[in-house]
Amino acid sequence: MTSTDVSEARRPIGVFDSGVGGLTVVRALRARLPGEDVVYLGDTARVPYGSKSPRTVERYSLACQAFLLARDVKLVLVACNTASANALPALRAASPVPVIGAVDPGAESALAATRSGHIGVIGTLGTVRSGAYERALAARPGVRVASLACPLFVPLAEEGWTDAGDAVARAVARRYLGELFARDAAIDTIVLGCTHYPLLRGVITATARELAGRDVAIVDSATAMAEAAAVALRRGPPALAQGERGALACFATDTSRLDEIAPCFLGEPVTSFELVDL
Amino acid sequence: MTSTDVSEARRPIGVFDSGVGGLTVVRALRARLPGEDVVYLGDTARVPYGSKSPRTVERYSLACQAFLLARDVKLVLVACNTASANALPALRAASPVPVIGAVDPGAESALAATRSGHIGVIGTLGTVRSGAYERALAARPGVRVASLACPLFVPLAEEGWTDAGDAVARAVARRYLGELFARDAAIDTIVLGCTHYPLLRGVITATARELAGRDVAIVDSATAMAEAAAVALRRGPPALAQGERGALACFATDTSRLDEIAPCFLGEPVTSFELVDL
Repeated sequence: MTSTDVSEARRPIGVFDSGVGGLTVVRALRARLPGEDVVYLGDTARVPYGSKSPRTVERYSLACQAFLLARDVKLVLVACNTASANALPALRAASPVPVIGAVDPGAESALAATRSGHIGVIGTLGTVRSGAYERALAARPGVRVASLACPLFVPLAEEGWTDAGDAVARAVARRYLGELFARDAAIDTIVLGCTHYPLLRGVITATARELAGRDVAIVDSATAMAEAAAVALRRGPPALAQGERGALACFATDTSRLDEIAPCFLGEPVTSFELVDL
Repeated sequence: MTSTDVSEARRPIGVFDSGVGGLTVVRALRARLPGEDVVYLGDTARVPYGSKSPRTVERYSLACQAFLLARDVKLVLVACNTASANALPALRAASPVPVIGAVDPGAESALAATRSGHIGVIGTLGTVRSGAYERALAARPGVRVASLACPLFVPLAEEGWTDAGDAVARAVARRYLGELFARDAAIDTIVLGCTHYPLLRGVITATARELAGRDVAIVDSATAMAEAAAVALRRGPPALAQGERGALACFATDTSRLDEIAPCFLGEPVTSFELVDL
């Protein structure tokens, strides 16, 4: 490894999200590539993106990415499904380094899991309206996709009402998943197309099983995104960092409730968030 | 009336909110003062304010108010409870015209309704954390206030799951109001301290009655804010406009779902929203 390669390897990986949910991707990234330095930006002042128009989502996403690029990242991970679904072409056009979105990795996980070829996608209104998962999943012939926006799942996860036995969580999950299975009773795989939903994996798994009368595979993008990052870093420069556990620097555009919520997503204590204006 | 008074009277009333919920205030305003022109701004690109820090809420609120003042309004109504609770002093300091918030009118409605003096306040996290309703209600000795943030009520209202018999709405209302009555079983009046909550008035009223075992008064700020506007306009300049039904001009920072949701709050068709950047 030349000295240029070494300094190249030490450049951090950038991850951004509309809020704190993207820390699930950081968690997967730190498990898969523990030596890498990571810079995380949550646009918590303007969260959520999921209910907003593609134009607004693209504008905010470009500002997030510009912040990361100014910190010399070697790779950008777009943890937010809504941003990935609506802004990826614009983000890639504006970035000198590779940009990995949430949709393609999530779709690949679903295609690896399904047997019937009937896949359900749940996410924000912005993700569902974009049709991005449908396009990614249509890569395999014979796949059928039903998708549904589930706006109550985000506040449910943030309230911490995530127990599989929680009465409110069950009532909400029954309403949404009931609608999903009504559209296609043969669904055997559900993609959690929003970074908050993995916190509700227990109740979603249990409710889907109850409604379908059999096991339903529940997949998300986080692990697949970390794998995609590993592949991208091995593919020539930018190079894979070696050694110690990497540093994690977290930034947010608003600090309300970060201390309370962020650790649920990251799975480790968050030392601190630095407040930034975009 | 001099010609100056007439041109003064024709200046519009400005109303802003973090999103579309503030149209409930416009609705009350147009019922109480039908001759007035109204300019409405919904900061839908950055909605919600309720989960964000006072600093961010103040910054966004000042930008909204500046937009209205640039349109020569004679009065500003802050429909958003979170903005009223966190940014009113800053807004008043920055405005040459009177600024009416949501909290004082809502508190007055509650004080007029309560007999036991035990009042419940439900709203966003930002409104509850500010303690603004407690301060406003403490104006009367012997009043006791219990307040609770109810984050799921907003997406519930936006999903349209607002029927008093809706299973999800009832489960959510039971969870929140159960917590509120656990804090104070003597509550006889509940303030709907968020512009979205009036859409859930039916389920909140029914659930509160069920939990309390008696009728509970449910009050909101919209009507009281319209009344406060009428009082402000009669108190010398700015003067009360006479005549025809006034014009309504609506602006928003993002247009996603406006056509779908806005009429539920306004109670009449919304001709159009003009998109603006703040």
